[in-house]
Amino acid sequence: MEKLILIKVGGRIVEEEETLRQLLNDFAAIEGYKVLVHGGGRSATKLAARLGIESKMVNGRRITDAETLKIVTMVYGGLVNKHIVAGLQALGVNALGLTGADMNLMRSDKRPVKEVDYGFVGDVREVNADLLAALIHQGIVPVLAPLTHDKQGNLLNTNADTIAGEAAKALARYFEVTLMFCFEKKGVLLDANDDESVIPEIDREAFDKYVEQGVIQGGMIPKLENAYQAIDAGVKQVVITQASEIHQGKGTIVF
Amino acid sequence: MEKLILIKVGGRIVEEEETLRQLLNDFAAIEGYKVLVHGGGRSATKLAARLGIESKMVNGRRITDAETLKIVTMVYGGLVNKHIVAGLQALGVNALGLTGADMNLMRSDKRPVKEVDYGFVGDVREVNADLLAALIHQGIVPVLAPLTHDKQGNLLNTNADTIAGEAAKALARYFEVTLMFCFEKKGVLLDANDDESVIPEIDREAFDKYVEQGVIQGGMIPKLENAYQAIDAGVKQVVITQASEIHQGKGTIVF
Repeated sequence: MEKLILIKVGGRIVEEEETLRQLLNDFAAIEGYKVLVHGGGRSATKLAARLGIESKMVNGRRITDAETLKIVTMVYGGLVNKHIVAGLQALGVNALGLTGADMNLMRSDKRPVKEVDYGFVGDVREVNADLLAALIHQGIVPVLAPLTHDKQGNLLNTNADTIAGEAAKALARYFEVTLMFCFEKKGVLLDANDDESVIPEIDREAFDKYVEQGVIQGGMIPKLENAYQAIDAGVKQVVITQASEIHQGKGTIVF
Repeated sequence: MEKLILIKVGGRIVEEEETLRQLLNDFAAIEGYKVLVHGGGRSATKLAARLGIESKMVNGRRITDAETLKIVTMVYGGLVNKHIVAGLQALGVNALGLTGADMNLMRSDKRPVKEVDYGFVGDVREVNADLLAALIHQGIVPVLAPLTHDKQGNLLNTNADTIAGEAAKALARYFEVTLMFCFEKKGVLLDANDDESVIPEIDREAFDKYVEQGVIQGGMIPKLENAYQAIDAGVKQVVITQASEIHQGKGTIVF
């Protein structure tokens, strides 16, 4: 199978001109098949504030009421996604911006209300990657926004890491997929205060140990659980790194 | 060649739940290959107002400064486009929302400053419909937002009628295209005060005569000029009608 790299970048990178420009240049320089998945939370929070809407977060997840859904649809599906697409086109990358509603790429269920009512937030149930894979083979570079739909007419706000993981798993049927998560640090750190203490490789046993020891904590735990789920489903490897290093092969390799 | 119908609907239709639902039902009921092009000006104006940004129009065209470009990118490319896509998916139509930046579908030049500086407004220069036509043949129903790009990283606000005309012309190489413009009336009216006075057919000679007589005036003139340009470029016919009549074959046929 041919290789494909699927890169997920968070909001901070894509929402500032300077870091975005660098990211797009680095991404454009990657050879072969590729997919970009982006966030956009900071822009959503900013727009919400300007509209007098309070952004409520629980466990790092946005509570998405009807008004907030409109905001994330505008920001993720429109502003951020199309800005990236236009930027990549300028670099000769034939980008195509997509949400999970487009081509019925990702269908999700509205998250059931338990202790927390997350509102219009989706848990992915079904990924239809046939057409996506065919487009990639034709030279298209998909740019995925963190939105899905329920196939009943509703868009649903969906975590960008989840989108990346689900897309990677579905594309693993067609490609040898490397899933790369970019965040602020150069990788998973052994010492949170030492940016150079990147753990080069983490297997499952090491992961359990690091969690037990408190070395890996907070938002990094679901990120790695997500990674192992992807590997179980056929993804070749997961790399956790910094956006500025995406074409250098550095970071933490999770396997 | 196989038939394709390309329908352009204005903002009013797609921005209110009731009329949108009706439109999507009617559109879903149309058999064969189809494309939807939408506006969204009212939502853009509304969002701009909430953000304290004044909407300036000249000759019915929006003056698009940097802030306004962000607003139309959010509203056209995100809010309206993805809402339509999700709505069509619920009806079993495999919709794909696109701007001109996606797959480099439409490249435009920023309109030169003459008497008016329209700002980030695009005049379409190049349409790449190969992939679009292939997708349509695979059952995809494109939903086009009125945005293009300049292939230098900038999105440009572009009149939805123009998008429809340019897409229709480019698709005329692959399909026998009917281009349908929907607006508030049942067609081009002989008497503006009589909604039933629809002119069933207008050829070029009649058009010139009606303009001279003042029967056809205002925004209808560029709409019809647009129509004749499309016909000159290979579009089979242009129909001007009301959104509620799109699958009835009524309205004014321009040829």
